Amino acid sequence: MGIFPRFARLPLKSTFIWSQYSSALSAVGRETSDRALIVSSSQLIQHRCVHSRGLGASPANPGDAPPRLPFSRVTQKDLAFFRTLLPGRSITDPDLLKSSNIDWLKTVQGNSEVLLRPKTTEEVCQILRYCNDRNLAVCPQGGNTGLVGGSVPVFDEIILSTSLMNQVMMFDGISGILTCQAGCVLENLSHYLEEKDFIMPLDLGAKGSCHIGGNVSTNAGGLRLLRYGSLRGTVLGLEVVLADGRVLNCLAALRKDNTGYDLKQLFIGSEGTLGVITAVSILCPRKPKAVNVAFLGCSSFQQLLETFQCCRGMLGEILSAFEFLDASCMKLLEKHLKLTNPITESPFYIVIETAGSNATHDEEKLHNFLEEVMTSSLVTDGTVATEATKIKALWSLRERVTEALTHEGYTYKYDISLPVEKIYDLVQDMRGHLGDMAKNVVGYGHVGDGNLHLNITSPSKDPALLAAIEPYVYEWTSKWKGSISAEHGLGLKKRNYIYYSKSSETVALMGSIKAMLDPKGILNPYKTLPDNIH
Amino acid sequence: MGIFPRFARLPLKSTFIWSQYSSALSAVGRETSDRALIVSSSQLIQHRCVHSRGLGASPANPGDAPPRLPFSRVTQKDLAFFRTLLPGRSITDPDLLKSSNIDWLKTVQGNSEVLLRPKTTEEVCQILRYCNDRNLAVCPQGGNTGLVGGSVPVFDEIILSTSLMNQVMMFDGISGILTCQAGCVLENLSHYLEEKDFIMPLDLGAKGSCHIGGNVSTNAGGLRLLRYGSLRGTVLGLEVVLADGRVLNCLAALRKDNTGYDLKQLFIGSEGTLGVITAVSILCPRKPKAVNVAFLGCSSFQQLLETFQCCRGMLGEILSAFEFLDASCMKLLEKHLKLTNPITESPFYIVIETAGSNATHDEEKLHNFLEEVMTSSLVTDGTVATEATKIKALWSLRERVTEALTHEGYTYKYDISLPVEKIYDLVQDMRGHLGDMAKNVVGYGHVGDGNLHLNITSPSKDPALLAAIEPYVYEWTSKWKGSISAEHGLGLKKRNYIYYSKSSETVALMGSIKAMLDPKGILNPYKTLPDNIH
Repeated sequence: MGIFPRFARLPLKSTFIWSQYSSALSAVGRETSDRALIVSSSQLIQHRCVHSRGLGASPANPGDAPPRLPFSRVTQKDLAFFRTLLPGRSITDPDLLKSSNIDWLKTVQGNSEVLLRPKTTEEVCQILRYCNDRNLAVCPQGGNTGLVGGSVPVFDEIILSTSLMNQVMMFDGISGILTCQAGCVLENLSHYLEEKDFIMPLDLGAKGSCHIGGNVSTNAGGLRLLRYGSLRGTVLGLEVVLADGRVLNCLAALRKDNTGYDLKQLFIGSEGTLGVITAVSILCPRKPKAVNVAFLGCSSFQQLLETFQCCRGMLGEILSAFEFLDASCMKLLEKHLKLTNPITESPFYIVIETAGSNATHDEEKLHNFLEEVMTSSLVTDGTVATEATKIKALWSLRERVTEALTHEGYTYKYDISLPVEKIYDLVQDMRGHLGDMAKNVVGYGHVGDGNLHLNITSPSKDPALLAAIEPYVYEWTSKWKGSISAEHGLGLKKRNYIYYSKSSETVALMGSIKAMLDPKGILNPYKTLPDNIH
Repeated sequence: MGIFPRFARLPLKSTFIWSQYSSALSAVGRETSDRALIVSSSQLIQHRCVHSRGLGASPANPGDAPPRLPFSRVTQKDLAFFRTLLPGRSITDPDLLKSSNIDWLKTVQGNSEVLLRPKTTEEVCQILRYCNDRNLAVCPQGGNTGLVGGSVPVFDEIILSTSLMNQVMMFDGISGILTCQAGCVLENLSHYLEEKDFIMPLDLGAKGSCHIGGNVSTNAGGLRLLRYGSLRGTVLGLEVVLADGRVLNCLAALRKDNTGYDLKQLFIGSEGTLGVITAVSILCPRKPKAVNVAFLGCSSFQQLLETFQCCRGMLGEILSAFEFLDASCMKLLEKHLKLTNPITESPFYIVIETAGSNATHDEEKLHNFLEEVMTSSLVTDGTVATEATKIKALWSLRERVTEALTHEGYTYKYDISLPVEKIYDLVQDMRGHLGDMAKNVVGYGHVGDGNLHLNITSPSKDPALLAAIEPYVYEWTSKWKGSISAEHGLGLKKRNYIYYSKSSETVALMGSIKAMLDPKGILNPYKTLPDNIH
């Protein structure tokens, strides 16, 4: 008998009801005979099922895979069912499956034997109903651009791709509300809207591949959050298929709706563990009539912070991004991507974007601001772009840092949220802490959101280096009441670090919600929730 | 044995788990020997417990009170406990209790015998732990400014007031993040922030009384939503006490945090039915350096919509409000509040507010816009204010409509969200539908958010008029995929109309979440959730 039916029969208690999921998970850990190990080459973690190393054994590193849970394994009969349901869209060719089994960073690889590509919500319903009945685990996948191993299978989970669910369903040019299927690529939506004089309220480096459903599932932040706010405010409606195949239709295209609990929020940022998002309604801002980008240099992080304060006051409502990178990032851009630094060398670089409705006013505001920060020596050098190609070139200095880092060997990535005045202290403390152990310790990110991307590179995967970084980085963050994942989510890699940012009560309640919505735990297992809920 | 322990023992099923709350509620309805009736004077609904009219009898009108649930009744021993816990802050004097037992509109009155005024989260914990153990129902109350009977007891629920939880806990002048207790009055927070050059991201007519905790519990919209977005985006953290007295601390003061499910969202807009909010972290915008208000007249709603479109294009990022009222509203303002119409009489009036960082730029944008709409005859007359007193006077023409209506006798209030081009059709169709039955049918609201406040008055409460309005208004709204409560919530009065805006699956899941977080159902019973969950 599998563990899940037993778990489902656990009696409800009036108090501490949400400790059940925790107990069930622990029981799973103890009872399973499967065991996952991390087999690493220089850049790749592969999860294989080997014999158990003992009862309740934990993975060597909290970011590694836990034991495989006792889901069913895909049979020929299952494959026949999927082939009939999705003719030509049920992929089993190993070559075609390869890119869906491995993450973009090439750090996590699963061994799924089947990739399903539904086109409609009804097909998703049928897939999940079947998988739930058969106790088959499912890994929902959008553009597979996630950075925490949340979008690829850990073992043999069936990959449910939204890539063919790419239709715009409705756009209202008066309200600016767009309704579309979950598999629409962010950049395609941006192009679609630009013709109608609107833009998407989010933008990120992965825009050419990422799907809007994945953006919502991971509560993606990105470059425009400072101006247009988070997806929790801009997503107006969702259609979600639950683990057992039922559809939860919360697809209202209304700016305001206070009729009961806002259930769609449960699915924003829960990384596919509570349901599969099949359609999204989102509020889109008008396309700005004027966009300017300034690229500036600062000689200290304190001056960068003062520039930010000044900028918020003087640019006010037209400020749409305030991003930074440090000198180490610039060196990697120059070295690996052959990008050119357009200004004199500085310890820190800022990208400021304005977006407004009046070009003359915007340029005047930007001019006044630049005059102020140059006169007061907050900024040492700078350049401004108003023309599209030049704007893109300046933005690429910020957007392509992640890509440049991949050329360095293995990158340990941390996505930290802190009170803004503390964000660079972490980079400096980490440098001091690691000394010569790391090849590079670099910092970049979204100053306007208090969001630091701390990246540490080494020629190859290095357990000793990892042991020096963690839990140091998490303890540091927790001490300053920060978040150990500002925008990337927890996925597989960060799931067990959740207690650094969330209380036991909160995590236990998460477990209870998971148990309520997905009692068999088939949706994106091993992700987001920690192995142990206490 | 009470019903709730039995309910709590219902077994969990792996599918349709959330139908349980529904069954339990139905069972309560059938088993109770208490029965509520509406005893109405011209303006007042009082709920009294009388003998049952039969098994499973429903209230005469879906907005009336359901039968009293079999909660315990407050004993002398209970009162002694509260007096010891809250010396001098456990109120039982009927005169002092009066205003807390009746809503602001004087349409719903309860009979609570005790009002508790905790000062700390720990006191709230102790109160709820005690009430949960004793099976005593609790009505959380903020400023008691709600419009749907959500903030007053329906029967004898203990009133838990946040009025003494009024301390600012922290303000970060760099990030603009405010953390405060739930009982802070919105206007007091606004004054506090203005000195620091910030503002609250929400503003509403009731600001002088409403509490921030109540604002968050009801997901209040108001006048600045167009600019700063909903509380789902601006509320960054919450501290909540659950029904059994445990504290859920999600009080992070961070702009971004993607570590697991965003549980605080469950408590935003759930009207105190899932937990009592005790503290709030909220992101506050910089105080604009310049504010302008224009009051304009339009000869048709179509012209008003075209003005809105033009306004969004030309005012862009400085537009902070676009509100309207019709000629009937203006007549009531003149008649009851002696306010003066500052422009020539028109069928429709618009209030436009700009808020920006550069007075010269803002005035220029506003001037260009006004010239455009006057030249093209979209607007027939108008006046502009830049000085605080005059701005306030213009705003009062919009903000005091609700107050003016209370002088008309009885007001049937509807708070509807629709595609913006449809909002005034409902007013006109309702006028045609009701003919002479209603004294007034007026429309005003937030054009920018597609949010209509439809108000229908009669000299006194009139069941025949009500029968003509409902379900007509809800069916009309449902036909156009609108929300039957855009921002007021459901409370007592609208709870049973939820199916016009939400699917059965969604409501059933709400019931399941309620059962999980408040298994005995002691928190704000008879509110938000419908009597029957199917």
